[in-house]
Amino acid sequence: IHEHVSPDPLSSLSVDTQGLQKQFDELASFSDSPAPSVTRILYSENDVLGRRYIKNLMSLSGLSVREDAIGNIFGRWNGDEPELAAVSTGSHTDAIPYSGKYDGVLGVLGAIEAINVLKRSGFKPKRPLEVIMFTSEEPTRFGISCLGSRLMAGIKEHAELLKNTVDNQNISFFDAAKAAGYSNVENLSSAFLNKGSYSAFVELHIEQGPILEEEAIPIGVVTAIAAPASIKVDFEGNGGHAGAALMPTRNDAGLAAAELALAVEKHVLDSGSIDTVGTVGILDLHPGAINSIPSKSHLEIDTRDIDEKRRNTVVEKIHQSALSISNKRRVMLSQFKIINQDPPASSEEFIIKAAESSARELNLPYKKMISRAYHDSLFMARISPMAMIFVPCYKGYSHKPEEYASPEAITDGVKVLALTLAKLSTQ
Amino acid sequence: IHEHVSPDPLSSLSVDTQGLQKQFDELASFSDSPAPSVTRILYSENDVLGRRYIKNLMSLSGLSVREDAIGNIFGRWNGDEPELAAVSTGSHTDAIPYSGKYDGVLGVLGAIEAINVLKRSGFKPKRPLEVIMFTSEEPTRFGISCLGSRLMAGIKEHAELLKNTVDNQNISFFDAAKAAGYSNVENLSSAFLNKGSYSAFVELHIEQGPILEEEAIPIGVVTAIAAPASIKVDFEGNGGHAGAALMPTRNDAGLAAAELALAVEKHVLDSGSIDTVGTVGILDLHPGAINSIPSKSHLEIDTRDIDEKRRNTVVEKIHQSALSISNKRRVMLSQFKIINQDPPASSEEFIIKAAESSARELNLPYKKMISRAYHDSLFMARISPMAMIFVPCYKGYSHKPEEYASPEAITDGVKVLALTLAKLSTQ
Ligand SMILES: [Mn+2]
Ligand SMILES: [Mn+2]
Ligand SMILES: [Mn+2]
Ligand SMILES: [Mn+2]
Repeated sequence: IHEHVSPDPLSSLSVDTQGLQKQFDELASFSDSPAPSVTRILYSENDVLGRRYIKNLMSLSGLSVREDAIGNIFGRWNGDEPELAAVSTGSHTDAIPYSGKYDGVLGVLGAIEAINVLKRSGFKPKRPLEVIMFTSEEPTRFGISCLGSRLMAGIKEHAELLKNTVDNQNISFFDAAKAAGYSNVENLSSAFLNKGSYSAFVELHIEQGPILEEEAIPIGVVTAIAAPASIKVDFEGNGGHAGAALMPTRNDAGLAAAELALAVEKHVLDSGSIDTVGTVGILDLHPGAINSIPSKSHLEIDTRDIDEKRRNTVVEKIHQSALSISNKRRVMLSQFKIINQDPPASSEEFIIKAAESSARELNLPYKKMISRAYHDSLFMARISPMAMIFVPCYKGYSHKPEEYASPEAITDGVKVLALTLAKLSTQ
Repeated sequence: IHEHVSPDPLSSLSVDTQGLQKQFDELASFSDSPAPSVTRILYSENDVLGRRYIKNLMSLSGLSVREDAIGNIFGRWNGDEPELAAVSTGSHTDAIPYSGKYDGVLGVLGAIEAINVLKRSGFKPKRPLEVIMFTSEEPTRFGISCLGSRLMAGIKEHAELLKNTVDNQNISFFDAAKAAGYSNVENLSSAFLNKGSYSAFVELHIEQGPILEEEAIPIGVVTAIAAPASIKVDFEGNGGHAGAALMPTRNDAGLAAAELALAVEKHVLDSGSIDTVGTVGILDLHPGAINSIPSKSHLEIDTRDIDEKRRNTVVEKIHQSALSISNKRRVMLSQFKIINQDPPASSEEFIIKAAESSARELNLPYKKMISRAYHDSLFMARISPMAMIFVPCYKGYSHKPEEYASPEAITDGVKVLALTLAKLSTQ
């Protein structure tokens, strides 16, 4: 019988900072947009190449690799007691259009490197350790965020929705997955995981906010994840010729959309809370010609809060605005669809404590904080105890090419993750 | 020596209404969008097929066909005195995305049928008669309206602009034209026409407004064309993650665009004139993801009036709004470009009179009116006396699939055009 002890954190945790940097750059080269931006869309050629790259890294680290029906990727290091529930860690590698190379990627490449760190230190886990690359955390292609982790969490409505989901080219989710090589995709329930499959889940991620950098604190320990709601809205009017249709006769679907976008901002600010945010990231006009009055408009709205009730009030106010704009402008509100309205999640105390003591042992100051962005952890929380570890990023930037975390910040994060996994694997 | 007399309008002007209907349907089948919508973009495969169709019809009508360097198509019926300046008529066949099958097309197919009508009646013109199909009246592909007629009018700034114009795929105007078979396109000045090349120009067109239909008047005689201005605007902000960036830190380029769109409407309405219109037909957000704050926005604005000064005041107010929104929201106004700001045009009295007497002789009630939409006639007015003939269209709809003119309305329009051409050819 082995003795399961944490490695001496100060002497033996050596991160291959340069090698890891190279991996960030290599993975970023699988992109549909030119560097320094990254665009990696679910089941695209570059996504498939990125997946191959990750599976190869997992194999090189001695992990045994499996993929589920929709391409969630698992790399397992079986511990001394492989029948125990594993400790898992991971994140995503898909990237929204024209974004950066750290969001999500840190939590995958960093997790594999944390395994390497532990192996190099001579550590042997008791519970198995598992690295997960989640399929499509970003909603880019099918309008559904955390597509993979929602399915792993066994959310049946989500599986039902996937059956009838198409992208904006009218390609079904199933066809897209098959084209990427996931021929078993229709067996969605095979990807469900039971509660208790994992004893703990930890996700390493850039903060995507400015706090750690501003306060010069290298580690954030996340105690809760803000609750997102996403809404799709369509307006329809009569359109017509931009010269010939006089102003009083118009019912311009584009102006209805413009008004609603500003109403979203107003309702969010009216909440009075700094924690309430709302964004119109998508606003499409049809037919989209300079001399044509928009006959259709489509908006996608994202609103979040750490307070679910307050966020739901904002959603309701947005709905009221959509109705009154539709009425006032005589445009039809042909869709007001709440795509998701998820509850927030709290981190589990014993994982927070493991991360805190890891940071302390590594002499790294840390701060307990809220995650305003949401993550696959939000859904892993439904089937496993969960917490997250944040590292600072430049100006809090994310979802754009300027997104950046320094090699030092990444190294600190990987060390804390490695030590946290080590501690959790013996609990 | 022949005697040049108008044919007896009541007995001999027979329009092939059914054949003409079939031509509308056939031409509409060359479309990048499904029926009943029509999308025919400059130099696209369907545009080239449409051009071939028109040239073939011209040949079948016994016209001698030529094309200039950018694909303006001319079909000439040489009269008894071919050395005289010709009487010309024509319009365009390009169609903005998801529009209808009558805008422009009536003035081309209807003109060729008017020639057929005159030939069948036994009429022989004194001056040559010429049918013109203008290249790209619509600004869809290169952002420039009346691309062909502006060049024919010899506008040098326009020719200069074309040399450096690219579409949104970054394909240059020259390359696009060459791909469509116009290998001589770089010789732009070869398409300039001198003042005096035509003794008169008449364009037959659907009204694109509701007046003739509402008043049950079959013919409109256009006395002036409203003056358009087009503006391109770009805003730039920092973008960022829709969850992580708190509201006070944001400078959302999408909200700046939404505000400007509403400001355009306000300034137009503030003019107090029913003749002032303004439209935001294009509003693009970058990167265009639900969970990304827009870092860039692009608007294209169209504003028109029959009063040039009043319209220019609206343009100036839009500029002021763009500046103050940029300032208030801390977004950069990276472009505010007036693409064109054309003067209005007046019809020539002798052509108005020819159209009026033609309508009277045909027992068709007519109304003198303003054209709020603009047309190639606006630029033909720079090198030739000009007027237009309107026919009613369903609810005034245009630039959408519901655009419709009845076979009766079209027949009446063709008859008036034929008789007007006959009269002008002897003047
Ligand atoms: Mn993200
Ligand atoms: Mn992420
Ligand atoms: Mn048009
Ligand atoms: Mn037209």
